[in-house]
Amino acid sequence: MIATVNHQFRLAKRPVGLPTREDWTFTEEQVAEPEDGQVLVKAQYLSLDPAMRGWMNEGRSYIPPVKIGAVMRAGGVGQVVASKDPAFAPGDAVYGTLGIQEYAVLPGTALTKVDPAVAPLPAYLNVLGMPGMTAYFGLLEVGEPKAGETVVVSGAAGAVGMVVGQIAKIKGCRAVGIAGGAEKCAHVADELGFDATIDYKSEPLGKALREKCPDGIDVYFDNVGGDVLDACLARIAMHGRVVICGAISQYNNTTPVKGPSNYLSLLVNRARMQGMVVFDYADRYHVAIREMSGWLAEGKLKSREHIVDGLDTFPETLLMLFRGENFGKLVLRVATD
Amino acid sequence: MIATVNHQFRLAKRPVGLPTREDWTFTEEQVAEPEDGQVLVKAQYLSLDPAMRGWMNEGRSYIPPVKIGAVMRAGGVGQVVASKDPAFAPGDAVYGTLGIQEYAVLPGTALTKVDPAVAPLPAYLNVLGMPGMTAYFGLLEVGEPKAGETVVVSGAAGAVGMVVGQIAKIKGCRAVGIAGGAEKCAHVADELGFDATIDYKSEPLGKALREKCPDGIDVYFDNVGGDVLDACLARIAMHGRVVICGAISQYNNTTPVKGPSNYLSLLVNRARMQGMVVFDYADRYHVAIREMSGWLAEGKLKSREHIVDGLDTFPETLLMLFRGENFGKLVLRVATD
Repeated sequence: MIATVNHQFRLAKRPVGLPTREDWTFTEEQVAEPEDGQVLVKAQYLSLDPAMRGWMNEGRSYIPPVKIGAVMRAGGVGQVVASKDPAFAPGDAVYGTLGIQEYAVLPGTALTKVDPAVAPLPAYLNVLGMPGMTAYFGLLEVGEPKAGETVVVSGAAGAVGMVVGQIAKIKGCRAVGIAGGAEKCAHVADELGFDATIDYKSEPLGKALREKCPDGIDVYFDNVGGDVLDACLARIAMHGRVVICGAISQYNNTTPVKGPSNYLSLLVNRARMQGMVVFDYADRYHVAIREMSGWLAEGKLKSREHIVDGLDTFPETLLMLFRGENFGKLVLRVATD
Repeated sequence: MIATVNHQFRLAKRPVGLPTREDWTFTEEQVAEPEDGQVLVKAQYLSLDPAMRGWMNEGRSYIPPVKIGAVMRAGGVGQVVASKDPAFAPGDAVYGTLGIQEYAVLPGTALTKVDPAVAPLPAYLNVLGMPGMTAYFGLLEVGEPKAGETVVVSGAAGAVGMVVGQIAKIKGCRAVGIAGGAEKCAHVADELGFDATIDYKSEPLGKALREKCPDGIDVYFDNVGGDVLDACLARIAMHGRVVICGAISQYNNTTPVKGPSNYLSLLVNRARMQGMVVFDYADRYHVAIREMSGWLAEGKLKSREHIVDGLDTFPETLLMLFRGENFGKLVLRVATD
């Protein structure tokens, strides 16, 4: 029953700019037997996230870098194949940091059971996983939106952005999404109910923000950094809040990060800009999951995944994030059963 | 008793880069008679502040720009010469937005009496005036320092910076001042009691901050922007706070403002950066003035002014701020009685 071979992507070297296939080694090894307290999981869906680019770099950050030669870090959902932790039995669906590989052996304490009856497995990498938690706590705890306010989110057709806008709507705010391309903008407006969208690829951002946020931006949830951050800072409302969640436009820079030239708008408008890391809210994930599951069931919150098949496509699939090619949460399907 | 001639500096054009004498017109006119409700004030000390540079620019800000042809806006203290407001009598010492001129006619409602027995008149442009209020509310309300934390302030030998560091000490924090030159650093350390200083003109800033803030920076009070802001962001402690009070290094730029490249340190460290404008706290100035007067009397708070004589020196004296040549609050003395 237990497959004997496991394939993996390991970090071969620290990339400069966009990671290429040469930055990875594709390895094959025997599947390890779980020891006491451990669980063997067969990966089904692996999460590909912008944050992974940061984990490939050396240096102090909110999480240690992936070591050279180590299996690339990634969250995933899969099925328990064998267990030496009494809390888990073969067939259980679980979430854990499985890594970019077909099989993972992890301590049971590092796994969480998920319920395929509540939501399909990929949702646990999306609205009920890290992106959902990031959107929930980042918007509500750091952004502190009040009903009637204007919430702008960039990367609005990405995993985090989609949820930010939908929660903003649930909380009685105006939601304005910035995304690349007409198709993404249409989805965000028509399917997810955002009040307005801006296609940054076809509209001058400053002008569009003036038109679509006539009273300024009360909360800007930033996933992208760069020029979009600057344009939003220029439109920030009095006492506005900027949530710094990510900066995907800057992750593959080979030159220094572009700092926001318009940061003095924070002074003029008595506004604040604050960073957040989702792990800080881990002790309250269950609260968010309960509330978000309810919204999913009521149809108030919609989930969309962009699923790509095949572990071996990982190096190229990852790049879709940095080219804005994913539409919804990017997920790598490595097994269908 | 009333002089008949008033001299003034009016804004002739919007400066590009550092303002020069050509950006001003020096005018002479009759002193106006106060009408009902108005007060004629003879200016003695005028306040020269970095913020004045911003007031010369066109565009939306926290206060309207000075109009072309208008007397340059400036706070000042002086003596009432004639009054048609029963609340004021000749000889009263008052604070108000007198402008860069020898005499001002203002509604009594725009003036505040000051008491030369509590502190010498220039102190009302300094620790008991806008710089003091800025330091007090910016540090305590936006920076929220806790005893034992490390507070770093740039422009530490300037009007605001001196007070920020001293209040930090009063509140039980470690105060680290960044200033230009050995003499300023020595004063800040020896006379004002800062725990450490960094001479940005002679020390590499990153290395000095690592040495002098081994546990990182809990509160960074920024008066200067540019490279100093970036260096401090790189050292910000977990949950640190950056108070954006000013950006004197950027005010005379003819190129775009340098945004802080290291702003993603806010994300890594779950830190925040927040702007402040002192006017927001106007309804509580009296609380701060009472507390700061007490500290002055007890010797816990020291005041230092850099006084330059002569209204006609205004265009050149103002530039001392942008060259880091003032040492303490820069004040223009326009009359000695």
